[in-house]
Amino acid sequence: MSAVTDTTRNGVDTDKMFATLDLIKAQPDLAKFQFRATNRWLGGAHNRSTIKGFYAAGGEDTSRTAAFEIDAGEPAILLGTDTGANPAEYLLHALAACLTTTIVYVAAARKVELTSVESTLTGDMDVRGALGVDDEPRNGFERIGVSFRVTGNAPEEKLREVVERARKRSAVYDMVTNGVPVVVDVSID
Amino acid sequence: MSAVTDTTRNGVDTDKMFATLDLIKAQPDLAKFQFRATNRWLGGAHNRSTIKGFYAAGGEDTSRTAAFEIDAGEPAILLGTDTGANPAEYLLHALAACLTTTIVYVAAARKVELTSVESTLTGDMDVRGALGVDDEPRNGFERIGVSFRVTGNAPEEKLREVVERARKRSAVYDMVTNGVPVVVDVSID
Repeated sequence: MSAVTDTTRNGVDTDKMFATLDLIKAQPDLAKFQFRATNRWLGGAHNRSTIKGFYAAGGEDTSRTAAFEIDAGEPAILLGTDTGANPAEYLLHALAACLTTTIVYVAAARKVELTSVESTLTGDMDVRGALGVDDEPRNGFERIGVSFRVTGNAPEEKLREVVERARKRSAVYDMVTNGVPVVVDVSID
Repeated sequence: MSAVTDTTRNGVDTDKMFATLDLIKAQPDLAKFQFRATNRWLGGAHNRSTIKGFYAAGGEDTSRTAAFEIDAGEPAILLGTDTGANPAEYLLHALAACLTTTIVYVAAARKVELTSVESTLTGDMDVRGALGVDDEPRNGFERIGVSFRVTGNAPEEKLREVVERARKRSAVYDMVTNGVPVVVDVSID
């Protein structure tokens, strides 16, 4: 007799997940990652990021075979032609995506099968700051609201715990709420 | 005799830009904007944001005719299948895009014609934080490096001033360096 166990939950290979966690616990140096983006201006509010290589687990990644090309733009009222979502909207996307993936991974680790995870994010901005019209409003969002709707095969309290744990562990939530030191250097050719 | 003046510089309609600035100075209530994203989980590390509607200048926008659909994912080492750039990479894209567009707009306002704007961004992360293996490293990037290469028809000092002014006015740079209050609410169906 043998038991066949499918270790995939929520689309996440939990055997691989726990093996990764054990490996990183044993060799903390493998936890050093570096992600990257290169960006090029294409005219007006249109620019494009290319994202491919990253450093992870002691070496340069070779698994990602194709680059992601991501276009940014602005709507007409902000002097663009909608060549892509605008940068502040991409920040909302980054936050939504990170919280969602973290919810899915936390649920998988806790044997919770999710049925759906949906969210709506809003960011309120007084554009006088970014436009340089007034020094009082800040440049970015004054506040961000995130509204999650989650369904799964666990009691409400357990699902709420999963979301709360994800909020405490999300990389982008940490960065957006706490800020990150950014060093800008400029070369003029 | 009449002079025909092309008011477009760096792909930005500067007449429209100065008219917008004057209007917002005169009626600060028009400066209240709200951007939005909705996100849906598609399995594992794959989720997708839909971005279209926003509130601007006293009403709901009607100019944007199509939604942007933006897919997120994770590489294999983070248990995904590369269905898109990962959330932290999208944050780098948001920062690159915002600084670039702000450089282009500031240059247009200051009568500087740019030839190229390119940037490389790096974000260093100890993933023990986000993976919940260790409480000491933060979840997000410890630091972000941004390296700009800018060329244009102005002396080096003037181009450096443009970049420095853009850094001081960029919405996403403000949010990433200073943080934003985020309120998360959860509905369990």
